[in-house]
Amino acid sequence: MIKNPVPWPNGARCAVVFTWDMDSDSILHLAHPNDADTRLSTNSMLRYGPEIGVPRIIDTCRDFGMKHTFFVPGWCAEQFPKAVEQMVEAGHEVALHGYLHEYPNELTQEEERFWTHKGTEAIAKISGTRPRGYRSPWYKYSKHSTDVLLDEGFLWDTSLMGDDVPYLVESKKRASGQSLVELPSRWQLDDWPQFVHNHDLDFMMPIASPQYAMDVYMAEFYAMWEHGGVWVNCFHPFCTGQVARMMMLREMMSKMQAKGDVWFATGEEVALHVQKVIAAGTYKPRVDRVPFYEGRLPELEPGYAMKSR
Amino acid sequence: MIKNPVPWPNGARCAVVFTWDMDSDSILHLAHPNDADTRLSTNSMLRYGPEIGVPRIIDTCRDFGMKHTFFVPGWCAEQFPKAVEQMVEAGHEVALHGYLHEYPNELTQEEERFWTHKGTEAIAKISGTRPRGYRSPWYKYSKHSTDVLLDEGFLWDTSLMGDDVPYLVESKKRASGQSLVELPSRWQLDDWPQFVHNHDLDFMMPIASPQYAMDVYMAEFYAMWEHGGVWVNCFHPFCTGQVARMMMLREMMSKMQAKGDVWFATGEEVALHVQKVIAAGTYKPRVDRVPFYEGRLPELEPGYAMKSR
Amino acid sequence: MIKNPVPWPNGARCAVVFTWDMDSDSILHLAHPNDADTRLSTNSMLRYGPEIGVPRIIDTCRDFGMKHTFFVPGWCAEQFPKAVEQMVEAGHEVALHGYLHEYPNELTQEEERFWTHKGTEAIAKISGTRPRGYRSPWYKYSKHSTDVLLDEGFLWDTSLMGDDVPYLVESKKRASGQSLVELPSRWQLDDWPQFVHNHDLDFMMPIASPQYAMDVYMAEFYAMWEHGGVWVNCFHPFCTGQVARMMMLREMMSKMQAKGDVWFATGEEVALHVQKVIAAGTYKPRVDRVPFYEGRLPELEPGYAMKSR
Amino acid sequence: MIKNPVPWPNGARCAVVFTWDMDSDSILHLAHPNDADTRLSTNSMLRYGPEIGVPRIIDTCRDFGMKHTFFVPGWCAEQFPKAVEQMVEAGHEVALHGYLHEYPNELTQEEERFWTHKGTEAIAKISGTRPRGYRSPWYKYSKHSTDVLLDEGFLWDTSLMGDDVPYLVESKKRASGQSLVELPSRWQLDDWPQFVHNHDLDFMMPIASPQYAMDVYMAEFYAMWEHGGVWVNCFHPFCTGQVARMMMLREMMSKMQAKGDVWFATGEEVALHVQKVIAAGTYKPRVDRVPFYEGRLPELEPGYAMKSR
Repeated sequence: MIKNPVPWPNGARCAVVFTWDMDSDSILHLAHPNDADTRLSTNSMLRYGPEIGVPRIIDTCRDFGMKHTFFVPGWCAEQFPKAVEQMVEAGHEVALHGYLHEYPNELTQEEERFWTHKGTEAIAKISGTRPRGYRSPWYKYSKHSTDVLLDEGFLWDTSLMGDDVPYLVESKKRASGQSLVELPSRWQLDDWPQFVHNHDLDFMMPIASPQYAMDVYMAEFYAMWEHGGVWVNCFHPFCTGQVARMMMLREMMSKMQAKGDVWFATGEEVALHVQKVIAAGTYKPRVDRVPFYEGRLPELEPGYAMKSR
Repeated sequence: MIKNPVPWPNGARCAVVFTWDMDSDSILHLAHPNDADTRLSTNSMLRYGPEIGVPRIIDTCRDFGMKHTFFVPGWCAEQFPKAVEQMVEAGHEVALHGYLHEYPNELTQEEERFWTHKGTEAIAKISGTRPRGYRSPWYKYSKHSTDVLLDEGFLWDTSLMGDDVPYLVESKKRASGQSLVELPSRWQLDDWPQFVHNHDLDFMMPIASPQYAMDVYMAEFYAMWEHGGVWVNCFHPFCTGQVARMMMLREMMSKMQAKGDVWFATGEEVALHVQKVIAAGTYKPRVDRVPFYEGRLPELEPGYAMKSR
Repeated sequence: MIKNPVPWPNGARCAVVFTWDMDSDSILHLAHPNDADTRLSTNSMLRYGPEIGVPRIIDTCRDFGMKHTFFVPGWCAEQFPKAVEQMVEAGHEVALHGYLHEYPNELTQEEERFWTHKGTEAIAKISGTRPRGYRSPWYKYSKHSTDVLLDEGFLWDTSLMGDDVPYLVESKKRASGQSLVELPSRWQLDDWPQFVHNHDLDFMMPIASPQYAMDVYMAEFYAMWEHGGVWVNCFHPFCTGQVARMMMLREMMSKMQAKGDVWFATGEEVALHVQKVIAAGTYKPRVDRVPFYEGRLPELEPGYAMKSR
Repeated sequence: MIKNPVPWPNGARCAVVFTWDMDSDSILHLAHPNDADTRLSTNSMLRYGPEIGVPRIIDTCRDFGMKHTFFVPGWCAEQFPKAVEQMVEAGHEVALHGYLHEYPNELTQEEERFWTHKGTEAIAKISGTRPRGYRSPWYKYSKHSTDVLLDEGFLWDTSLMGDDVPYLVESKKRASGQSLVELPSRWQLDDWPQFVHNHDLDFMMPIASPQYAMDVYMAEFYAMWEHGGVWVNCFHPFCTGQVARMMMLREMMSKMQAKGDVWFATGEEVALHVQKVIAAGTYKPRVDRVPFYEGRLPELEPGYAMKSR
């Protein structure tokens, strides 16, 4: 299935990176800048993430002896420093998720640079370490993101979806060799399409049972285990951090541990390992030089069909 | 899982509060003020709630020896007084759900005060008791709601979603100590995302089987039972009050009773209990002073990024 | 559960009325009047209904010894007279579903009268019998529909959703006694929310497995069987008429027959029975005088809150 | 069930045609012509199709000894020639899917002719063979498509949905006898409604488990096997080409092979067989002369109801 499986440490058959996006209520302010302050139900639903979800996730990780990766918008870190401190104390990775969950693809390069830097500084100040991993808010990685992230000293990203195994992302504006390690995401490993239903967030969906969602997530796990890929989920403390879903998560973690030969690691650990096996010549990853395109396709210019005839 | 489980009466492991929103056709008038009168199918579908659903639910409660909580918009009480009288006669709690299901977050404070008062008076007149519990229409609790509710003498609310256990909500405009007891809701305990499909109500969704929906609801029950939280659902007489779903509900109630060590109570009973254990010092709840924010975030001002550089 | 179960013939525990809406491509013309002619895929998908689905359904009915009710827009009967002739030859009921599937709630009374009459004439001409049963296109029964239908000589309707058992619908403009027999529909017995996914029809939904959909439909059947109601589905020949779903339908029919004590009947047969047991005094139905409202609610007038204070 | 089952080769009970639409990122450019270049996550998600999905699908076909049919927009072939070359080398059919995935129903006849020709040339140049099969982008087959396709020398199409077995499509502008062989598609055999969730593509859906989706697809297979039809799916390399879903696909293929008496073939092979059995007089297919309509229906003219009275 996978042409170039990674040589994982200790002969593990796959790598599992649990990641959490601690958006808290940044996304509500973004969706309703003028009246987020009067939508208290969604507000409280989202604040559940850092206040209730994060400590619970950290306890769970301790029970299972795992380290996870938390993506935190800078503003959320400032609003909920205690949640970030708990992550750090327990040895988890704190990575970047924008400043206010702003969408990079809607920004100029200067604006993206501003917010990425501001977010990085906020995380660094509270966690004590500059973040080295990144996921774009809503996966909206822009054509400028690679340069912005490399300039800020980032090591790895998990906003793209181009493979089953880690690969390298380079900027077309730079010489080859400067790259981000990409740990690809997949929508089917996100908890929004399974569990979120909320009008303020314009996301009106059926709500799946924990059992059904677990079937979706575990199908991906068994696939990666069988064929040597990387499993990177994207859960949210306000959502999967709720009790019934955490019981599902514990069941997932148990099943994964029981399966054996799995490397549970943070994103940074995986990225560093990937760099190492590349350097050692035992792994030859794909390299994507981006952006893939520049500007509007000529075929989509008005009148193209008529003029080309 | 839950850091501060409530000491429930008689050593119960969790509290279960069955609640129903008897919206009847108020929501159709709200959605289509000018032509709700000519949408008879949805009209009849919604009137099924007070006319068929409510008596059936009350019979079911009698069979199981349970008291439930009914949230009723004032206008609906006026339109369907018999349904409310049946609730009162059978000893259920009648609580407030706005007057015409209007959304508080779209109102000025004066308007919210007007409608809340009007709804309260309507309920009091028909039920004989001023309502002490509240759920905002469509969970749209506003930044003014806390003050409005405290001024009207309310004891408890279930519009917010900030925890797994009851907590206190205070107004930032008031001194600490005046508070509502919050019994948090969760979208996964609502019957709309599972069962409702209706074009007039702009809610076009797949319709789940009763068995599937029950799996969603019971996962939450087992979670609360295992870990000591409160289970507050939000069902609707027009929807779950239908026969096939009531058979599912009976199965749920049987399973819950068979599980044992469950405190089935109305919202008011739980709120009073929470006040008691707080006073006794045996429960220390979270306190949310709200609103969480006032106005637009400075970071979301136009040009903020440019000006801040 | 059901307060006033109908005394069904021969001691049957419930009545089952299989109904089909043979819309064919009328709905595509309605949705895209200007360019329906160039959307051939959806066009062919919908024409499958009368061309492939209807004969197959009729064969299936013969195998099971059942009579079904087909709702046909007049225009569809004119376009596909053979399908209607097959229904008539096999002894099924042909009932009315508008002329071009136009929505009555968007029409003036005169327009509704025009289209209802035109549809009735079209059906009568092709089927040889004036239709006596009616379902509004998209259940959009208007405030004028009762008068229009009574004037056209209709006996029964299945557009409303106000009960689990048949009831009577009267017009507020007429003296009591002139009524339609209502055999209530339910969205969960429709095949669109389970199976349809189509962009031209602006209905983008997940597609359920036949097994899952059957669980939804059979839950309703077991409920009606247990408690004495009427099961009226709303399937579509273009949709459930497809092979895999017809295999599901056969399984449903088998299970229903095996359950025993079920009265399988057309809508007209049920309506006549209901009239008979009412006349005999052995069934006392609810009577809804409609429309329920006339015009905009005073509470929804602009400024009502301010003026009423 | 099926009135005129096809005499399949070697007494097979049904034909199974696996087809893949290799859209890659053409659909993103079409949806966002001005800023597709800065939506890198979706871009990478879609490029996964030709880069990772296609080789994997080809390997899988080799393992099972099957030939599949790949629909490729001309532009995608130009962007990813290697993927097309791999298809050709392995003996699969390369068929046409527009040039840039443009929607024929939104084009004039001249424009459709231009893009269809351009796409055909692109495929022919890279694959070495003029494509003879066609699926309209998003099934948006226009009223001009038949003429355009016949003029370009196409043999068969699978954009329409009018039957369970192959049939013939003729143009009303031409004498009878010139026809396309139609191998009908069905939405329930598409992988988008089961698996795709993506905001950039304006397709916000729940994501099904592989097991659930397989139930949907296999129900169609068992139906066709039992009753002699043709099973033509529409999967996408970026979507079902992912590992977990390919494991599902392998399970499907195994089950189909184990069932026995199945003719696995490319679309072209089936179309040629259909022509042969028609010529031999052993199969008499339906013939659809299209378009079904020309222009707006008179009944939908403004004021029709009033003028016709």
